[in-house]
Amino acid sequence: MFTFESDYTEGAHEAILQRFLETNRVQVSGYGADPFTRSAAEKIRAACEDPRAEVVFLAGGTQTNQLLIDALLRPYEGVLCAETGHINTHESGAVESTGHKVLTLPQYEGKLKAGDLRDWMQRFLRDETREHMVWPGLVYLTWPTEYGTLYSRQELTEISDTAHEFGLKVYLDGARMAYGLVSPACDVDLPFLARTLDAFYIGGTKCGALLGEAAVFPRGGIPAHFLAQQKRHGALLAKGRAVGLQFDVLFTDGLYLDCGRHAVEQALRLKQGLIEKGYTLFLDSPTNQQFLVLDNGKLRELEQKVGVTRWGPLDEGHTIVRLVTSWATPPEAVSELLALL
Amino acid sequence: MFTFESDYTEGAHEAILQRFLETNRVQVSGYGADPFTRSAAEKIRAACEDPRAEVVFLAGGTQTNQLLIDALLRPYEGVLCAETGHINTHESGAVESTGHKVLTLPQYEGKLKAGDLRDWMQRFLRDETREHMVWPGLVYLTWPTEYGTLYSRQELTEISDTAHEFGLKVYLDGARMAYGLVSPACDVDLPFLARTLDAFYIGGTKCGALLGEAAVFPRGGIPAHFLAQQKRHGALLAKGRAVGLQFDVLFTDGLYLDCGRHAVEQALRLKQGLIEKGYTLFLDSPTNQQFLVLDNGKLRELEQKVGVTRWGPLDEGHTIVRLVTSWATPPEAVSELLALL
Amino acid sequence: MFTFESDYTEGAHEAILQRFLETNRVQVSGYGADPFTRSAAEKIRAACEDPRAEVVFLAGGTQTNQLLIDALLRPYEGVLCAETGHINTHESGAVESTGHKVLTLPQYEGKLKAGDLRDWMQRFLRDETREHMVWPGLVYLTWPTEYGTLYSRQELTEISDTAHEFGLKVYLDGARMAYGLVSPACDVDLPFLARTLDAFYIGGTKCGALLGEAAVFPRGGIPAHFLAQQKRHGALLAKGRAVGLQFDVLFTDGLYLDCGRHAVEQALRLKQGLIEKGYTLFLDSPTNQQFLVLDNGKLRELEQKVGVTRWGPLDEGHTIVRLVTSWATPPEAVSELLALL
Amino acid sequence: MFTFESDYTEGAHEAILQRFLETNRVQVSGYGADPFTRSAAEKIRAACEDPRAEVVFLAGGTQTNQLLIDALLRPYEGVLCAETGHINTHESGAVESTGHKVLTLPQYEGKLKAGDLRDWMQRFLRDETREHMVWPGLVYLTWPTEYGTLYSRQELTEISDTAHEFGLKVYLDGARMAYGLVSPACDVDLPFLARTLDAFYIGGTKCGALLGEAAVFPRGGIPAHFLAQQKRHGALLAKGRAVGLQFDVLFTDGLYLDCGRHAVEQALRLKQGLIEKGYTLFLDSPTNQQFLVLDNGKLRELEQKVGVTRWGPLDEGHTIVRLVTSWATPPEAVSELLALL
Repeated sequence: MFTFESDYTEGAHEAILQRFLETNRVQVSGYGADPFTRSAAEKIRAACEDPRAEVVFLAGGTQTNQLLIDALLRPYEGVLCAETGHINTHESGAVESTGHKVLTLPQYEGKLKAGDLRDWMQRFLRDETREHMVWPGLVYLTWPTEYGTLYSRQELTEISDTAHEFGLKVYLDGARMAYGLVSPACDVDLPFLARTLDAFYIGGTKCGALLGEAAVFPRGGIPAHFLAQQKRHGALLAKGRAVGLQFDVLFTDGLYLDCGRHAVEQALRLKQGLIEKGYTLFLDSPTNQQFLVLDNGKLRELEQKVGVTRWGPLDEGHTIVRLVTSWATPPEAVSELLALL
Repeated sequence: MFTFESDYTEGAHEAILQRFLETNRVQVSGYGADPFTRSAAEKIRAACEDPRAEVVFLAGGTQTNQLLIDALLRPYEGVLCAETGHINTHESGAVESTGHKVLTLPQYEGKLKAGDLRDWMQRFLRDETREHMVWPGLVYLTWPTEYGTLYSRQELTEISDTAHEFGLKVYLDGARMAYGLVSPACDVDLPFLARTLDAFYIGGTKCGALLGEAAVFPRGGIPAHFLAQQKRHGALLAKGRAVGLQFDVLFTDGLYLDCGRHAVEQALRLKQGLIEKGYTLFLDSPTNQQFLVLDNGKLRELEQKVGVTRWGPLDEGHTIVRLVTSWATPPEAVSELLALL
Repeated sequence: MFTFESDYTEGAHEAILQRFLETNRVQVSGYGADPFTRSAAEKIRAACEDPRAEVVFLAGGTQTNQLLIDALLRPYEGVLCAETGHINTHESGAVESTGHKVLTLPQYEGKLKAGDLRDWMQRFLRDETREHMVWPGLVYLTWPTEYGTLYSRQELTEISDTAHEFGLKVYLDGARMAYGLVSPACDVDLPFLARTLDAFYIGGTKCGALLGEAAVFPRGGIPAHFLAQQKRHGALLAKGRAVGLQFDVLFTDGLYLDCGRHAVEQALRLKQGLIEKGYTLFLDSPTNQQFLVLDNGKLRELEQKVGVTRWGPLDEGHTIVRLVTSWATPPEAVSELLALL
Repeated sequence: MFTFESDYTEGAHEAILQRFLETNRVQVSGYGADPFTRSAAEKIRAACEDPRAEVVFLAGGTQTNQLLIDALLRPYEGVLCAETGHINTHESGAVESTGHKVLTLPQYEGKLKAGDLRDWMQRFLRDETREHMVWPGLVYLTWPTEYGTLYSRQELTEISDTAHEFGLKVYLDGARMAYGLVSPACDVDLPFLARTLDAFYIGGTKCGALLGEAAVFPRGGIPAHFLAQQKRHGALLAKGRAVGLQFDVLFTDGLYLDCGRHAVEQALRLKQGLIEKGYTLFLDSPTNQQFLVLDNGKLRELEQKVGVTRWGPLDEGHTIVRLVTSWATPPEAVSELLALL
């Protein structure tokens, strides 16, 4: 049974595994001081057009969020995010475990609005009891969001400008960044993100790597003693090559974007097919996650043949279903899914 | 230049990489609920002769220590270890970052003694101010130790009995376990460890895997909601297969022990050669780490040709040098090193 | 200028200060092992009709909330509360600083509902991703609430039954408990609270003491090594008598309830007067905090003569104003305030 | 039975209690924004001859240590102290509970040495693995120490200079400061401490107050948003006057030093008497804590008549006994104790 449950059901792009084999017996230093990792960082700096960017490789998304948010905040500060933000819902309190409150803003298809951020900050700063509240230090964004949607260049600029006006940093969780960068709806690129944000990560686990994420601190803005902070979080790999080499391959000859492009093409084929068949989409996603409204009977039938994610009930008779493609989704699987529906 | 700096300078045993390639497009569930991970856990349970053991796969050693110690302790408890214990010296305060004090006992070539543990506990329990002190909850051991030495069956039994008599748990850090299990000086095995300890981990990163460690909770003794605790620590991999599959390969046809055996054979060849050449060993290690005393002039000369680790100064004219072999060390490299010395 | 800003503007009931003077040179042991503290605990046990209750004296409300919630939860658990709960809004992230997420439920005049709690828990337990979420461990209530309102006996019973059905503990913040217990709207008493809750505290700071709160763990349910946990939180006073003696006085001859009664009588006089003068109350509070809607011009005028708290804007032209009485409010001050309005 | 167990067996200097009575009904703002607290801060600034010093009042010593160390360190930094330092031994891990490791230096009658600090830092900075270790950020001193001894002006200058040379801050725990400042062996004063240290606290609980400590940040060096940090630690008292007023009294007409003087006079009388009777002192303390070596039989006899603290066994037949005087010790009690011995 094929599954559209998630974008982490397969291994890694084969070019990565081949490169592991080719370089396997090359002896290198540990903890990220190896030539593969250095080369990957260099390529990401080039892709970001930011020669001063610092790049750090980590094993997973929650680890990256937890470490970066903790390193970017002062201990008593909190992080603002849309109420649907991954750190607020599905990371088992990883951010709070480091002592920081997650402060929520309203969400609109997974996105927060600069205007809401401004209102929140103005209300906070007018509040005479604010020293008894959690001081905000950072805005957390996901891109693409948990709903597959994308902030536009203008939206990101407004959010970033507003945040900076109030002394807040902006950090972007790019677990599925490849699927955003290649979307027809996308009007931003890595150099823009590097100019606009204070930190972000380029997701590997869901975008073609076996595991791993690349954290980027633009313009040299890496927190002090970051290596020690990484180690203290249990987030420093002895064999740094295990992630560094993967990003070196992904950022060679545009492989990272190719991985994204394949998935988004298949997702948009699926979306188009669903529309043509008269299905209702829960929202209009331009990336590799599609959200479909299904009659509960139909859903149970479908689940006999193909794996999907139940996102939650819409009403008594209908369920929101998530369908996800990846760098590895065979076009035939999409055709078969459409045939089934 | 060949390097004997550490046992994490190469990639992974090729059988692992081959298996990644073979299974790459098989779609599996995330977060450890995949057949590779389940098979690895089953094989480790069998190797431990403990059908109720719970096995959890993690990305690195510090992460494993931090998570397990935090999960095994109550928040106000501390962990006892030899003053040379890795958690006390080289983990950037990862244990303290979760709120637990590291309480130290004297070390003897990297090992602590049951008698010291008993004395410490008796003194603690007699102290009328003990509720103002940190309550001990766990004993942390490394095996092999940071000095390559091994606790014997009798030593582990005594430590474990003493700890349990005082209500303490015992947790063993087996980052280099393969190199202990195959040592001629070893008189324990996995079933003994599973009967004697409350938790331990079987190291992968330094013993043939690309990355990863296998945490074992014998007799079903896994802390409640451990998956959520893993996630909260940023230690849950979306692609659980990335580590699970590696242990599945390592625990097939004895590969894990073969990896260990190769390294220890080369280390003992090296040790024998050094003795024959009249060199002074800092201590008598029966595993893959050897500690040599070198004249500082000689050391500088050697470092032109081969990578070693300076462990620290012995006296004004001499340095303690660590030489490490691994599953991947070519026998010729050892011969060349001996020829150089 | 008289102020109705809060119930902590004066010192302590004079009987407390007199008793400090009388007993000042009596030498006693530290850390709560003194006869004043023991007597206070005994009187509170009697007032709760719970001979097995454990009583611990602490310096302040946020400290008490932080310590008790941390001690009652397992490290990975979160605490459920109304979104207006003090721990969620005005404790600077004290709960999160110990690693626990605050999970919010809708509020109705400061109260949460058993039905919402049940819905939340059912949704949580049905959610297949719940191990990636924060596991709830405790329900936090305030009584009286931040809005002066009171849960009834039936409401507390329903909340407690629902919580216990789902394995959650219930903890009640009684910073203003005296003002609840004597309210004409109150149908509960201390023995009921001790039978129904898992922990609560009887507020002193706002109810006649110079400082201090009495934490009660009914039926012997005090967390293990609580004294060490107190010390670890910086919450153990060397001179335990400094708080213990105050509660000994407050729980002698009904002084605690007398303090409450005086304040509530004055608050209800004020409320009645406001109603008679045609003012709009923001909500119907039966305790010592009254919430008035005032025209902004009128408010600025009033603030020239008397201290009040601006609770927040109602609309462009009106503000919600909080007026608070205490054990020390002179009846004349209430008369003067009514004359001013 | 009179007791010399500790300096927190009595209440408060009566001038404090009288002042509480006199001012009891004066309405003031909460959280330290009251005139008593402001006056106390002003007097301490004057006593320190540092008009820019920031003064914050807290409830107890462990709370003060925990909050200040946490606020002065970055999250990944540790604190260096003598191995006998109170934070390392008798605070139940309060410092570690906020994520910071306590790093120990050798102790000499409770004091650490500048030379050892320099050696430690040089060894640390030469260590190539230092990013895997805990980065030191602060030196913690007690004055008087846990053994009643005092650092001299020269020792404090050397320690401070060494610390600052290596980028470390210096924080001094003055729980018993009154008893140091008036000792005949003392050659420092508050202005010197304010010029030399980065933070310190002037102890109240053990020096004449009912409870409370005054934290001093010389030269305006208070950490950002300190009020919010205080609240987050549960260390902000609603009735700030409860501590502020006490220090206002203690710093009026030299009462703080008078309290210290009385205790030290009695302690030195006791010491002189013990020497004259031929007793062995464990060490030479010039402050209010005296350490006596007693035969175990004699000790048991003595304990029938007077309260003392067993500090620990010296050898099989002898015990180290601590005798403490305070601002409240009647001279007759010392005479009776000497008569008993």
